[in-house]
Amino acid sequence: MTHAIAILGASGYTGAELVRLISTHPSMRIAALSADRKAGMQMAEVFPHLRHLDLPELVRIEEIDFSAIDLVFCALPHATSQAVINDLPDTVKVVDLSADFRLRDLDEYAKWYGKPHSAPDLQKRAVYGLTEFYRDQIRNARLVAGTGCNAATGQFALRPLIAAGVIDPDEIIVDLKAGASGAGRSLKEHLLFAELFENIKGYSLGGTHRHLGEFDQEFSAIAGRPVEIQFSPHLVPATRGILITCYLRGEPETVHDTLADAYRNEAFVHVLPMGQTPAMKDVRGSNFVHIGVVADRKPGRVTVIATLDNLTKGSSGQAVQNANLMLGEDESAGLMLAPLYP
Amino acid sequence: MTHAIAILGASGYTGAELVRLISTHPSMRIAALSADRKAGMQMAEVFPHLRHLDLPELVRIEEIDFSAIDLVFCALPHATSQAVINDLPDTVKVVDLSADFRLRDLDEYAKWYGKPHSAPDLQKRAVYGLTEFYRDQIRNARLVAGTGCNAATGQFALRPLIAAGVIDPDEIIVDLKAGASGAGRSLKEHLLFAELFENIKGYSLGGTHRHLGEFDQEFSAIAGRPVEIQFSPHLVPATRGILITCYLRGEPETVHDTLADAYRNEAFVHVLPMGQTPAMKDVRGSNFVHIGVVADRKPGRVTVIATLDNLTKGSSGQAVQNANLMLGEDESAGLMLAPLYP
Amino acid sequence: MTHAIAILGASGYTGAELVRLISTHPSMRIAALSADRKAGMQMAEVFPHLRHLDLPELVRIEEIDFSAIDLVFCALPHATSQAVINDLPDTVKVVDLSADFRLRDLDEYAKWYGKPHSAPDLQKRAVYGLTEFYRDQIRNARLVAGTGCNAATGQFALRPLIAAGVIDPDEIIVDLKAGASGAGRSLKEHLLFAELFENIKGYSLGGTHRHLGEFDQEFSAIAGRPVEIQFSPHLVPATRGILITCYLRGEPETVHDTLADAYRNEAFVHVLPMGQTPAMKDVRGSNFVHIGVVADRKPGRVTVIATLDNLTKGSSGQAVQNANLMLGEDESAGLMLAPLYP
Amino acid sequence: MTHAIAILGASGYTGAELVRLISTHPSMRIAALSADRKAGMQMAEVFPHLRHLDLPELVRIEEIDFSAIDLVFCALPHATSQAVINDLPDTVKVVDLSADFRLRDLDEYAKWYGKPHSAPDLQKRAVYGLTEFYRDQIRNARLVAGTGCNAATGQFALRPLIAAGVIDPDEIIVDLKAGASGAGRSLKEHLLFAELFENIKGYSLGGTHRHLGEFDQEFSAIAGRPVEIQFSPHLVPATRGILITCYLRGEPETVHDTLADAYRNEAFVHVLPMGQTPAMKDVRGSNFVHIGVVADRKPGRVTVIATLDNLTKGSSGQAVQNANLMLGEDESAGLMLAPLYP
Repeated sequence: MTHAIAILGASGYTGAELVRLISTHPSMRIAALSADRKAGMQMAEVFPHLRHLDLPELVRIEEIDFSAIDLVFCALPHATSQAVINDLPDTVKVVDLSADFRLRDLDEYAKWYGKPHSAPDLQKRAVYGLTEFYRDQIRNARLVAGTGCNAATGQFALRPLIAAGVIDPDEIIVDLKAGASGAGRSLKEHLLFAELFENIKGYSLGGTHRHLGEFDQEFSAIAGRPVEIQFSPHLVPATRGILITCYLRGEPETVHDTLADAYRNEAFVHVLPMGQTPAMKDVRGSNFVHIGVVADRKPGRVTVIATLDNLTKGSSGQAVQNANLMLGEDESAGLMLAPLYP
Repeated sequence: MTHAIAILGASGYTGAELVRLISTHPSMRIAALSADRKAGMQMAEVFPHLRHLDLPELVRIEEIDFSAIDLVFCALPHATSQAVINDLPDTVKVVDLSADFRLRDLDEYAKWYGKPHSAPDLQKRAVYGLTEFYRDQIRNARLVAGTGCNAATGQFALRPLIAAGVIDPDEIIVDLKAGASGAGRSLKEHLLFAELFENIKGYSLGGTHRHLGEFDQEFSAIAGRPVEIQFSPHLVPATRGILITCYLRGEPETVHDTLADAYRNEAFVHVLPMGQTPAMKDVRGSNFVHIGVVADRKPGRVTVIATLDNLTKGSSGQAVQNANLMLGEDESAGLMLAPLYP
Repeated sequence: MTHAIAILGASGYTGAELVRLISTHPSMRIAALSADRKAGMQMAEVFPHLRHLDLPELVRIEEIDFSAIDLVFCALPHATSQAVINDLPDTVKVVDLSADFRLRDLDEYAKWYGKPHSAPDLQKRAVYGLTEFYRDQIRNARLVAGTGCNAATGQFALRPLIAAGVIDPDEIIVDLKAGASGAGRSLKEHLLFAELFENIKGYSLGGTHRHLGEFDQEFSAIAGRPVEIQFSPHLVPATRGILITCYLRGEPETVHDTLADAYRNEAFVHVLPMGQTPAMKDVRGSNFVHIGVVADRKPGRVTVIATLDNLTKGSSGQAVQNANLMLGEDESAGLMLAPLYP
Repeated sequence: MTHAIAILGASGYTGAELVRLISTHPSMRIAALSADRKAGMQMAEVFPHLRHLDLPELVRIEEIDFSAIDLVFCALPHATSQAVINDLPDTVKVVDLSADFRLRDLDEYAKWYGKPHSAPDLQKRAVYGLTEFYRDQIRNARLVAGTGCNAATGQFALRPLIAAGVIDPDEIIVDLKAGASGAGRSLKEHLLFAELFENIKGYSLGGTHRHLGEFDQEFSAIAGRPVEIQFSPHLVPATRGILITCYLRGEPETVHDTLADAYRNEAFVHVLPMGQTPAMKDVRGSNFVHIGVVADRKPGRVTVIATLDNLTKGSSGQAVQNANLMLGEDESAGLMLAPLYP
């Protein structure tokens, strides 16, 4: 059976990535694509690399007949998503890629995003979309909130360790390096080629990055008490990819074993042998996560490094993985594409 | 039916690319991988991005039982290939990715590669592997010689034009821009990151690049008389991709129509609307070729720009496309992966 | 004696490059910096890499007291320049970096820039700023028009050859590769890091690039009859640098000798030994031009490759070189900085 | 007065950087250049970007008449340096860029570099070359040991803080991001363009990087008791530049004030206003260090970010700065070149 898919906000990078993944998916078919400002254009005009595909024309959201749609991927900007999804018929399942439904506490939402949530009832029923940890709820959800790409990377490295109590939750530092595509196709000076090339710079430092809302929510829930991490994101001269270096307190072997056990049966999360660490390009264009553990020369200190592709496992790949579950398909359907290397 | 595949020389970039493509191919299975100097290692040690795959250990060629192999991809260096392939049992089909069997004239081979061919009988029976133009012969071939990646790009742009007589064959200039992966994983100073980054340089200029042997052979055959083009390759700071700018004499509309007609039914070759030209990244990681035509302000002058991914359509993707034909499968099986963008 | 300098439009890349060059210039002092939209800011806020310098605050043009200024570098956008320069007092010398005063024929200006010139009298008195070829006129000029960076590169390769009659002026093809900084700090989608990285694309192809106005004007004047070249610019994934590959008809040795002779006494233009060709990074950050000549295998065909840094020799370095002459200083003062490599 | 300079090991990146800096230095003159394997070649053959300079031919060390040399920059590999310098006449001053004379404790040297020191007497008299902190000793030294580029970056961020006792010396984490040129021009697979492009990877993790020997030595001396930091270097896809993110315990304002005070009169070290952080490209090609301080949301936690160019301030620029002192020149002579941006 083939599921009819609509992608709202198809003219951004996550939209294009969804089209890429669905184009070879065995049981999904793209039935509608929206892009308000580019309505009337062909996808190949916006993304010429998709020229080989027979795709519907870009339309405005209100032109879509949602009665013919099984599942919607909503790749709209934050704040816009909640209004649009609130208006969708109940018959359609939704995977949202924005930040709008990630935070369960409405005060936390208002704190991190600067204004009250406009669809609080919907918010309550949304399921957090980190597939490997919310699988059962996702399977039965109508609305799944895709995680932040940075937040996903940190959680893959840290959730099992906090859950098992093998690291000190008050001593967690995450140094993150992220490529430019995480910021989308938006026209900002620091995203210009001439600016970012041969450059690295921290941003949203000191505890101000919005993905901390997710980290706080999830890690506190796991630990059963408030957990606040330190988190320093850096923009690096690469297009795709996030690599984090986590500075932790715990016994290195225990940390490694805990992670290896946690992901032993996961198709997409790979823990490297003790002492080996991953390279960002090793997962580029794929839905895989690579995690490595290194003991420090100082006893009781351990470094965990994790990497994923922000557009695939960090957003659109995760979204397809969740949609697979929601549609009763095999979780990895269409997602076993090997990374592009070199 | 699943075909058992061996890849000889699997530790190079074209080897890794073959593994990537075959890993989601519906009817191929990797049964053996060779890499002489890395025999005994796992593929994941050589290419950690392939960690998720269950692959045979790297072995020496002589350890492979070829009676269990249906088809061999030979990704060995030039000159090595001819000796190895000569020793393979007749029962196994072969797609060679080296330059060893591309030139039908043994004198031309000796001229461009600096020594006589060691397997001249085999040479005579090899079929030139530019799929779109040698389809019928490839279908029945035992040995197919993959084309040079630069030579492939030029031929996609020029073959239909020479064949139709719509351009002057004595006035063909091809200015080529190529990423670093075309040179393989070899340790050469000019391939160092610190050297190539933020750099561009011509190489093998003035008619000395070996792929001219292929151009001369093919274009002369089509034209029915000697054709020699001008060809200037440049190394550019990119990993994958070749983009050529061809300066030609002919009527632009006729040139465009001729190319559009030639590729109208081709799955992998796309001719853009008149006046539009392709970007190198639009085909990255895919088996597609994009071609554009622009009229010059000077009457009778026309520019044709073509691009492909040197590791996919330029070598390993082409190899799989040929193997599909040789094995009786659909020509595009496993090859409809969308480009990775951005 | 130290000359008081004003830079108008200091918040763009050419403005920053002027500041860089003047900061170690032995006889220039920055007395005023303008940037209309950023008036009131410090230069270090706009360009933190200039933090070590003691610079005047950015102001609006009308705030500058031009009676205290010896020479103005005008780095404003096209069309804005002519109005601003027209209002400057006669006592101040001007080097304009825009396109406004490059074309002597007002019809040509209107044709390439889409509207009539607003300061035609000034236009008549402007001197074309290709220093090596207009030295005497520049020395006595009040207004010098900086050349286009692409136009400069092409002229360094071709002017001596056209002048000497050693190439066929009807058979000139220039294939140009340019880094992103030539387009300035403007927010355009194709200049985003995620778009340009790992990418190459032609632009303004087929004879539509505005710098053709300069090529036509200069080459026709030299040849004594109309000369129209073919010109294909490509945007490449680099920040600084232009490299051109020129396809010409002539005797290679004669072409090489003509260039070598022409530049024998030039401090900034270097002709490589016959058969050697330059790399773009070899001139990065410097005022040098490197030129190489290669014979083609086809008799009578010759390839000339030239490279320069678009922000230095292509605009701000050239501007300082011209200003040196206008101010009676040594032509190379402040400009002998070695390229930054790697 | 002009000092006669010899550069030993001129064919590497630090050698080329020394030539670049000295080429516009007011009182240094390059009198000899050595490169054993490239003896007999011109520097322009090894580094074409230096083509404009009139330089001595590359020779073997034993061909140099050191009686005519005032100061030697020794840019030879580790271990080679000690033997060569041991043989130099006492009349010549030496700035060594290798690791050979950085560690005062011979056991520490043997521990980090894997074999005993061969010139222990010389080692005792060498002065550690972090100019801003060893100025007086350097002024009178015959042999100065240039610091490691990573070690320099960390010390600029941390020395004043440890000295003032405003951070906890047992809780120092340094996450370092470094471009490829720090590894030199050596042919290693992970330094290939196709490998490093679009990639990030940790290396020498867990307390195994040799520059920890310097950190331990210097920080312990300042603190008056053993200090061991955590240190994680990462290779990033850039050519030049090091950026470190230091996770510290202390009061943010105090940390900022301490750094601002320490560097108030330094020409090359700039502390940004509280809350601002530096970008790696802001110091590219220059001798400057930029340092920023950010308070974390967790009380008592503070992040310090520092950046410099590994080839300039991290090695060759520092070397010239030290040589200036040793030769009685102004410390900043020849070093006020502005960064190259973009």
